[in-house]
Amino acid sequence: MTLMSSIFEEKLRSNLSPSCFPTSSEKYFHDPRGQLGFLGLVIAPEKVDEVSFILSNCNQERVPVVPYGGGTGLVKGQLFSGMNRPVIISLERMKKIRGVYPNENTLVAEAGAILSDVKAAARKVDRLFPLSIAAEGSARIGGNLATNAGGTNVLRYGNTRDLCLGLEVVFPDGRILSDLSRLRKNNTGYDIKNLLIGSEGTLGIITAATLKLAPQPAKEGTAFFVIPSPKEALSLLSLARTYLGENISTFELIHRQGLEFLQEKIPDVRIPFAELPEWVVLIDIGVPRHFDPIAILIDLYEEGQNTQIVSNGWIAQSQRERDQFWSVREHIPEANRKIGAISTHDISVPITMIPEFVSSANKEMVKLGDFRVNCFGHIGDGNLHYDIFPAHGKTREYYQDIEACIQKVVYDLVTDMEGSISAEHGIGRLKVKELECYCDSTKLAVMKQIKQTVDPNGIMNPGAVISCETC
Amino acid sequence: MTLMSSIFEEKLRSNLSPSCFPTSSEKYFHDPRGQLGFLGLVIAPEKVDEVSFILSNCNQERVPVVPYGGGTGLVKGQLFSGMNRPVIISLERMKKIRGVYPNENTLVAEAGAILSDVKAAARKVDRLFPLSIAAEGSARIGGNLATNAGGTNVLRYGNTRDLCLGLEVVFPDGRILSDLSRLRKNNTGYDIKNLLIGSEGTLGIITAATLKLAPQPAKEGTAFFVIPSPKEALSLLSLARTYLGENISTFELIHRQGLEFLQEKIPDVRIPFAELPEWVVLIDIGVPRHFDPIAILIDLYEEGQNTQIVSNGWIAQSQRERDQFWSVREHIPEANRKIGAISTHDISVPITMIPEFVSSANKEMVKLGDFRVNCFGHIGDGNLHYDIFPAHGKTREYYQDIEACIQKVVYDLVTDMEGSISAEHGIGRLKVKELECYCDSTKLAVMKQIKQTVDPNGIMNPGAVISCETC
Repeated sequence: MTLMSSIFEEKLRSNLSPSCFPTSSEKYFHDPRGQLGFLGLVIAPEKVDEVSFILSNCNQERVPVVPYGGGTGLVKGQLFSGMNRPVIISLERMKKIRGVYPNENTLVAEAGAILSDVKAAARKVDRLFPLSIAAEGSARIGGNLATNAGGTNVLRYGNTRDLCLGLEVVFPDGRILSDLSRLRKNNTGYDIKNLLIGSEGTLGIITAATLKLAPQPAKEGTAFFVIPSPKEALSLLSLARTYLGENISTFELIHRQGLEFLQEKIPDVRIPFAELPEWVVLIDIGVPRHFDPIAILIDLYEEGQNTQIVSNGWIAQSQRERDQFWSVREHIPEANRKIGAISTHDISVPITMIPEFVSSANKEMVKLGDFRVNCFGHIGDGNLHYDIFPAHGKTREYYQDIEACIQKVVYDLVTDMEGSISAEHGIGRLKVKELECYCDSTKLAVMKQIKQTVDPNGIMNPGAVISCETC
Repeated sequence: MTLMSSIFEEKLRSNLSPSCFPTSSEKYFHDPRGQLGFLGLVIAPEKVDEVSFILSNCNQERVPVVPYGGGTGLVKGQLFSGMNRPVIISLERMKKIRGVYPNENTLVAEAGAILSDVKAAARKVDRLFPLSIAAEGSARIGGNLATNAGGTNVLRYGNTRDLCLGLEVVFPDGRILSDLSRLRKNNTGYDIKNLLIGSEGTLGIITAATLKLAPQPAKEGTAFFVIPSPKEALSLLSLARTYLGENISTFELIHRQGLEFLQEKIPDVRIPFAELPEWVVLIDIGVPRHFDPIAILIDLYEEGQNTQIVSNGWIAQSQRERDQFWSVREHIPEANRKIGAISTHDISVPITMIPEFVSSANKEMVKLGDFRVNCFGHIGDGNLHYDIFPAHGKTREYYQDIEACIQKVVYDLVTDMEGSISAEHGIGRLKVKELECYCDSTKLAVMKQIKQTVDPNGIMNPGAVISCETC
């Protein structure tokens, strides 16, 4: 890796339109958790050919490249920390929806399209783009693909990976792969698409994608069901499946700690429970016309009570109530941020191991110190956010020395249960060492071989995912 | 690539149990279409360590390896045709179901497990392994994964790729990747799993897999609806989705030609129509309890008639009738084989292009000669089998000179429509030249780079997918 010369920068500036160079570049160097990255030259190309030009030049000169989407990633994938000034390629001006095909349930979007704009474009033709994450108002679809984003609709519709049919990609040497296939079936060679999805900008830059749409469910319903523990949450999910098959869109676990954080930090959010339950599940369903979602939820509630899975419940009676219920779930991450975590863990385990994970992890935490634990998330996918906060009256700094220890205990436990140390956020720069430690050694070796062959000069997002000697 | 020496063969024989060497090896050298491969040394290991031992030795000696599943592939992926005697590794003895996890909807199977045995193991715990293909009584799950098999349930459940959560793989140098994850979400590094799936044995050998199960639909229903043309088939699918959402399992198009072949070659199959329709759709649905599949199909039929999409229909009233309806669809490939095709084409196009594809292709065929065209398949996925047969009284040999021309016309048309020249069967050795011709050049170049880095000695299934100078 070499230093970016002024001649190099001048070459880029003279070959690209001035509009490719944002006037202010401050926002590109910090993430939602307040982490900072090193400064670089920000370029915002508008066309795939410009991306190709920039990359091939960076490749020739060995200048590091950091792809930048909406900047909402939580594992520092967008924050460079190597020795040399990088080129930061922001996709923000490549935000066109190139085509919408309602009768095919597909849509072609450029990588810089904001997720909520993609969803709006689908809604306009009575279709659903199901990816639902907290940051959807600022996250860009290219970043969602690069990180294989998860969210609250994975149970029904899959991860971002499952919502993509084709990609346009620029490789580090400037070659363009143009495979914006709108096909559901295509068995012509290796799955390069899925290699790029989830590679966090370390193999190439995704510039556009063909996305899968789903029919908008004709009717929807939402409920909170109080359950004694995570074990009964799984029994309730199983019961719900017998009533609803694939029509369950969301099945989220919420712990009382999250509700208390909400009351403390965002009291405007209306919580429908007079008394805060220990554990509650948010269920959201979408059914075809001719079906009555509220009637089905009532049946489910009654059967849940009869079998002593469910102790209390609230079924939304209007869209306004649905929004209120959702607001509780959606504001928990913000309340967490306001409290300030010591350590957060985006983990998954085989779904039947969830109850054991929660009780074992809680026991381990008690041994380590005095914390508040907010355990919540996508229990239907076996994915929990197991986040550790200071006890009342204590600050994060107080726990500084045991942060690493907390992480090790959680990740060791997850690994014992054949789980994952990163279920939906990715590796970025935050978990590179952990990946080296917990990943299957052959998988890691093959990853490195592929990185070496696709990006031999190591210019693509160096230091992310794969360890980098100079970063 | 070097010749297999007797010393090398002796080393394998002395280090592996005699049970690893099948006494008869005839079946490994021909495929269901009667194509022949070159003879080799067949080895049937029982353990992943044995696979590793064989591969690392072959790699050291540069002996070609052909992985062999059920031998049911249709594109000669299992038939070696290079210069040197290969080792054929049959997975037939690695057929254990290692674990069934009904509460997680997962199952871990070894690669040699026969598809119908995997399905039976799922059914035993009231779960569904949805992959449904004609060869399921002999195809093995490792081969299904290696070729990313499709079939009649893709519309609802996806291709084999979508039904796999984790893999155990042996790479050519003998390294074992052990990632039999039972997780729905796992964002830890590159997607090596999907790189192996669909790579047709050219990067490594899949020895086991974690498979996704689905709940068994509580009730099922099946119907034939007569439609005037493929255009109305798409309108019917769209209408069916408003009634049924994701509960449509199968949506297959059948042309009169296929029914005539059935009457001619397999007259025992009971066709429920007194008069053969020009086009008919087989629809299969699976719904949760509380729903009545027959009532929904009646509603759909009536609405289809009202909107002049559907002209006639038969709704199965019993399981026996469902089986009869399915039998019509399932016997069409066999009838085709008995007639004997000049040229078959497993193609896909964006689903809205299907009507135009069918009418344009038919017009082109008329220009080329006198044929019988059987166009049928998975219209819900945009995937048709467009198969060309001799006219009455003519033989295949009569058309020998224009076979290549027929293919070119079909593949050019498909490519003009941004379709695929292999929707579900793969590339094998049959379509390597076509892939070179029709594939995005960057994609092909990246595929070759990956092949080179993962299998630098080129021992893995040489000549399949990627062109090979010595084959």
